[in-house]
Amino acid sequence: MIVKLEKSISEKRLDEIKELVEGEDISVIINESSDEKIMGIIGNLQDVNLKLLEKCSEVKEICKVDEPYKRASRKFHPKNTVIKMNDNLLVGDKELMMIAGPCSVESEEQMIEIAKRVKASGANFLRGGAFKPRTSPYSFQGLKYEGLKLLKKAKEVTGLKIVTELMSTDDIEIFNNDVDVIQIGARNMQNFDLLKKVGKLNKPILLKRGIAATIEEWLMSAEYIMSEGNPNVILCERGIRTYETSMRNTLDISAIPMIKKLSHLPIIVDPSHATGIRWMVNPLSKAAVASGCDGLIIEVHNNPDKALCDGKQSITPDMYDTLVNELRPIAEVINRSI
Amino acid sequence: MIVKLEKSISEKRLDEIKELVEGEDISVIINESSDEKIMGIIGNLQDVNLKLLEKCSEVKEICKVDEPYKRASRKFHPKNTVIKMNDNLLVGDKELMMIAGPCSVESEEQMIEIAKRVKASGANFLRGGAFKPRTSPYSFQGLKYEGLKLLKKAKEVTGLKIVTELMSTDDIEIFNNDVDVIQIGARNMQNFDLLKKVGKLNKPILLKRGIAATIEEWLMSAEYIMSEGNPNVILCERGIRTYETSMRNTLDISAIPMIKKLSHLPIIVDPSHATGIRWMVNPLSKAAVASGCDGLIIEVHNNPDKALCDGKQSITPDMYDTLVNELRPIAEVINRSI
Amino acid sequence: MIVKLEKSISEKRLDEIKELVEGEDISVIINESSDEKIMGIIGNLQDVNLKLLEKCSEVKEICKVDEPYKRASRKFHPKNTVIKMNDNLLVGDKELMMIAGPCSVESEEQMIEIAKRVKASGANFLRGGAFKPRTSPYSFQGLKYEGLKLLKKAKEVTGLKIVTELMSTDDIEIFNNDVDVIQIGARNMQNFDLLKKVGKLNKPILLKRGIAATIEEWLMSAEYIMSEGNPNVILCERGIRTYETSMRNTLDISAIPMIKKLSHLPIIVDPSHATGIRWMVNPLSKAAVASGCDGLIIEVHNNPDKALCDGKQSITPDMYDTLVNELRPIAEVINRSI
Amino acid sequence: MIVKLEKSISEKRLDEIKELVEGEDISVIINESSDEKIMGIIGNLQDVNLKLLEKCSEVKEICKVDEPYKRASRKFHPKNTVIKMNDNLLVGDKELMMIAGPCSVESEEQMIEIAKRVKASGANFLRGGAFKPRTSPYSFQGLKYEGLKLLKKAKEVTGLKIVTELMSTDDIEIFNNDVDVIQIGARNMQNFDLLKKVGKLNKPILLKRGIAATIEEWLMSAEYIMSEGNPNVILCERGIRTYETSMRNTLDISAIPMIKKLSHLPIIVDPSHATGIRWMVNPLSKAAVASGCDGLIIEVHNNPDKALCDGKQSITPDMYDTLVNELRPIAEVINRSI
Repeated sequence: MIVKLEKSISEKRLDEIKELVEGEDISVIINESSDEKIMGIIGNLQDVNLKLLEKCSEVKEICKVDEPYKRASRKFHPKNTVIKMNDNLLVGDKELMMIAGPCSVESEEQMIEIAKRVKASGANFLRGGAFKPRTSPYSFQGLKYEGLKLLKKAKEVTGLKIVTELMSTDDIEIFNNDVDVIQIGARNMQNFDLLKKVGKLNKPILLKRGIAATIEEWLMSAEYIMSEGNPNVILCERGIRTYETSMRNTLDISAIPMIKKLSHLPIIVDPSHATGIRWMVNPLSKAAVASGCDGLIIEVHNNPDKALCDGKQSITPDMYDTLVNELRPIAEVINRSI
Repeated sequence: MIVKLEKSISEKRLDEIKELVEGEDISVIINESSDEKIMGIIGNLQDVNLKLLEKCSEVKEICKVDEPYKRASRKFHPKNTVIKMNDNLLVGDKELMMIAGPCSVESEEQMIEIAKRVKASGANFLRGGAFKPRTSPYSFQGLKYEGLKLLKKAKEVTGLKIVTELMSTDDIEIFNNDVDVIQIGARNMQNFDLLKKVGKLNKPILLKRGIAATIEEWLMSAEYIMSEGNPNVILCERGIRTYETSMRNTLDISAIPMIKKLSHLPIIVDPSHATGIRWMVNPLSKAAVASGCDGLIIEVHNNPDKALCDGKQSITPDMYDTLVNELRPIAEVINRSI
Repeated sequence: MIVKLEKSISEKRLDEIKELVEGEDISVIINESSDEKIMGIIGNLQDVNLKLLEKCSEVKEICKVDEPYKRASRKFHPKNTVIKMNDNLLVGDKELMMIAGPCSVESEEQMIEIAKRVKASGANFLRGGAFKPRTSPYSFQGLKYEGLKLLKKAKEVTGLKIVTELMSTDDIEIFNNDVDVIQIGARNMQNFDLLKKVGKLNKPILLKRGIAATIEEWLMSAEYIMSEGNPNVILCERGIRTYETSMRNTLDISAIPMIKKLSHLPIIVDPSHATGIRWMVNPLSKAAVASGCDGLIIEVHNNPDKALCDGKQSITPDMYDTLVNELRPIAEVINRSI
Repeated sequence: MIVKLEKSISEKRLDEIKELVEGEDISVIINESSDEKIMGIIGNLQDVNLKLLEKCSEVKEICKVDEPYKRASRKFHPKNTVIKMNDNLLVGDKELMMIAGPCSVESEEQMIEIAKRVKASGANFLRGGAFKPRTSPYSFQGLKYEGLKLLKKAKEVTGLKIVTELMSTDDIEIFNNDVDVIQIGARNMQNFDLLKKVGKLNKPILLKRGIAATIEEWLMSAEYIMSEGNPNVILCERGIRTYETSMRNTLDISAIPMIKKLSHLPIIVDPSHATGIRWMVNPLSKAAVASGCDGLIIEVHNNPDKALCDGKQSITPDMYDTLVNELRPIAEVINRSI
């Protein structure tokens, strides 16, 4: 349920009305649109005293929210969520979140070289898998804790923020310490235990869309994180499973405007995993930026043919540089920047 | 099978080599890339005398084509197909094919008003359903022959070329006379009888992708048309069927670069049918142009809420005007124009 | 709209009430359930004089039909449709429709041998493609008219009824003369021109489900046929397109009970095309019969490895014999017979 | 890699050959078919000394296994896996695994009543969700540890074995103590951390297929469990996500024969979740048994309309009784029993 209040309402009255509503099974969150204060009410709505609310002169409108997601809904939070990484780095604002790096962390040399190269091209975040979710138990599972250390070294050298995937609740503390954005992979999008636990952190969470998740299910998984107290969720479209076999997955470009309509959360795109094909990264990145996404996560490898994982979809640092240069004017046309 | 020949080969030698290969069950088509003449050979390849071919000094390379489509393959025809509508209007060249108009032709007044408006905004083709493929036999099936007449009137007034859908082989002659581009709808993409018959015309054919057609099946349907002699096929991506229910279909944006890689045929995008949602037309059109498509087919209605069909996905002439103005700078960035 | 009337209503009164309702844009069809006469009303329902109807003492109930299909709906026709092929052969009744034969007609010898063998095992219909819908224009397209002749010869010898696919409206007359059940293939399920034209015949139509057709769309295609006057539609589930790649398509077994619930039309299953794998025909046929289907269409070839088409999914006459023997006790358990 | 050995080989020779092969990165497992001993070799196959192996007179054949799953493959383990629950209760043998019970555990009274009723009808396992994976964080999440206690009480009263879902690695120990079969839900099919941890137990694991998992991915998830040492995996087909909207998911009946071909693991079917529709449970259960599955997991609730979860798909104890009675003769026909 949403209660729209006069924008000019005093803090004191706002608190009074909030107290009126809150209860054992009812929580209240306050946001604002350009015209109003928005009071979002979640929980046992039968217990809300509507008559009292309606009597408050500051209440302009009370409306039901049909969507099952609440905190993730734009109705609860009309303005775009902007996540502050530091004074100069915001996610969800004008500047795009440009994440680049290898599929898996392989060596210190590799990480530092790639990190330097992508930073020079315009990346502001470094990706790299330390713990790898592989379909086969016999495939390379990542350098694990050693991989995290190498990511940190590359961060020290370049200043790039680290984005990497968390697979086990056992590692939450170390990720919370070492990592700037914790990625939840597509396969764990409905691992509710993991979602709840990262929901208790204050760290930004990059939530990849499950391979056959509906947009609503995806937002519900964001809601799991947010309902535990962590509002810093970044969504990532990475291709969905369809019948088409000429590429690995089908990039759902329409998810970008749909998420922007339904939610206030930032959404970025992973064109590398979406298709699994190197030469598709360039045109799909352009499409993603033109359609209004908030960033791109792209696999870049200095020697793709020798990559321990997913080499076919990785582009070289040179290709990344060309790509960013081609993306900049498109971003500018729609008032974004890289 | 493809035989690559010296670019400098004389017409006479080319004819001699062609004669060497052609046979009862073997047909030969000649195209060129920037570096070579390309001789494409289709049919009973066992009968081709490879030894004789290899002896020709002009033959640089002989290679097998694994793809089941031949005439539609870029290997057979390395340069982009450009279809000449008239001296100033080319499809598949720098300028985008901008088709606009109502879902169905409703009245003379409607057609002429919309045609004038979309032309003023930058459209170069007029769409409008005269014969409508409706899921229900009880739904409005279009004005039929009367609808064709109204399209012609709008063409007289505005000069816009006509694009409209053919549903029955009975109407091929009248369409061949009255229509500039014959559309084959998604439901008929594998109506092989219809494909073969429009393959005998010289008219451009707009071939929509079937709702669950693979890219290979789609190119095979183009091949059906081309194998009968008509090389003027324009492909149209219009969304594919997936599990996602928040929009009607899922626009397969990756089909654009994939078709560009595999084929030389022009490909345009229908963002209106892809989602069935008016406000998604704008962002998806931008994505389509940025990813390199050759045009857009968009539903525009002067009174969408009273449209006899598909009103929810139609945009107004004003929205179309805004859209084209926003698309132009994106087109320019990637060296295209509207 | 449906009007339920007393079962005991006289013919005269029924006609009077029917006349009351019928109009230029309103058609009326009469069926019965075990308890009532059912008057189904299709067309411009605003013109129906509900007040007059409600006054008729024989009217028990008037209800709206939300489904877009009417003639195909079980609400309009509560009892199962049973199609009489001749005095002893009914489709949709206790005895299963057992269609067997090769993917494509290849020779007289082949057809007669297979026909004899499958008849001996329990088949009551003979299948065989004369006109073949092939994805590639370069693949074998069937013996065409010559193939029809061979089917007729096999019918003369064995008495088996002929089921074969119609692809072009040009051939409707010859099919109407020569064929017992006209098949509309999956690719033409929404070729509305073809549907309307076979709707004008009185011949049974086997309507295959489109490869990605919803159950509602499939019933709407049946409605296209029925709305032209032909009530003899047999539905055929043949697998749907999904992401799974270990078999060609995914047999939608749940379509059988769902169709039985929503419609009165017979439904049979094609386990051969559903998977494209020979050894899956046996277990899936058992599943289909156990779930309540009205028949099976199975590809049988005397030399599958040399079949001109779809050999991998064809079973041998011996395998067919074993299958039928294993199906009989399952059929008996659920009160059906072969 | 598989090495087929003479059936008559002595234990001693077998051990000698095994030692010959084993190494740091190579593990060996021994199984048998009706004709041979099968030595399955997993790991760094380049290190296997093929020449030495080929010299052993007991070695009949050495073959590569293309499938990425090894322990789960029928090539490694030709005979069906049979899991012994106790002296009289085997899973994967002639008698079907009949799991029944409510979606979620609600009260002691409910559990005991349902358990008694389904046992009387023929069930041998009791299901009931204590921890519920709900799409929404605001939905009822189960009685949790209290729910486990109630399941144990129902087991004490009826003797039925308990099957219930584990969601968090935190609860592995309590599940290992209290539960007879640990269920891994569809959403966690690729939660590799969870799979590895239950792989260290000796408890049977019911592994549900992910909602859009391919058969190969599903077997790879079984392989994750098995590769940690737990061979007791039971697969459960529960419907896959397709475009069809008339039911919740599409039961993939063909998965049953496909799994039987590719793997030796038992496979059961969940017709309740597959469709979400009560009246479809009966026909789909029949189809599943007829196609050769090893069991059924069915939601049964004594008051479905008041169920806290999934009431629409639950059948009543009376309906379950009827169903089992109708399934028995079908099971008998194919040499199974209930």
